[in-house]
Amino acid sequence: MFRHIVLLTLHPDTPAAQRSSIVTRLRTLPDRVDTIRHYTVAIDAGLAEGNADISVTADFDDEGGWAAYRDHPDHQQIIRDEIAPRLASRVATQFELPT
Amino acid sequence: MFRHIVLLTLHPDTPAAQRSSIVTRLRTLPDRVDTIRHYTVAIDAGLAEGNADISVTADFDDEGGWAAYRDHPDHQQIIRDEIAPRLASRVATQFELPT
Repeated sequence: MFRHIVLLTLHPDTPAAQRSSIVTRLRTLPDRVDTIRHYTVAIDAGLAEGNADISVTADFDDEGGWAAYRDHPDHQQIIRDEIAPRLASRVATQFELPT
Repeated sequence: MFRHIVLLTLHPDTPAAQRSSIVTRLRTLPDRVDTIRHYTVAIDAGLAEGNADISVTADFDDEGGWAAYRDHPDHQQIIRDEIAPRLASRVATQFELPT
């Protein structure tokens, strides 16, 4: 399996409803992107200073599955409409899941 | 389950051996911290510009399990000896895993 993790930090004045909307719309992607095997989108629990606001953990069969997700038009549209306008910073990683 | 994710970005001049040493030492923690249920430490595959270098994904029964890991002396020693001197930036999140 090939894993992609991204942590999103939003502008501090982002309303809670916008934050929830990002999560809700991302969670529609497993029904639209057929290379996704597991997909977890979560809002940070607020326990530690400086944490990211939203995480996405996505598993694919291989690197090509991730690339198909990354470039999928429905994914790109959510990024454009919902995430990019509110994004303060973003950090990601991809790796083969150790078996 | 309660999940903790941290993405570490190291100083660019960090030798590969130091990077591997961080991973190797972190991977000893599941044998020493009894609240860890699943633990994945991985080096970034190098496919995207600006990615973090190392990720840790750790699952616990609950928030208390995470706090015990966070504060465990063996964990703190690895942070002090291996990670802190080479750390450029760090971003983390914790959340209840959706069932």
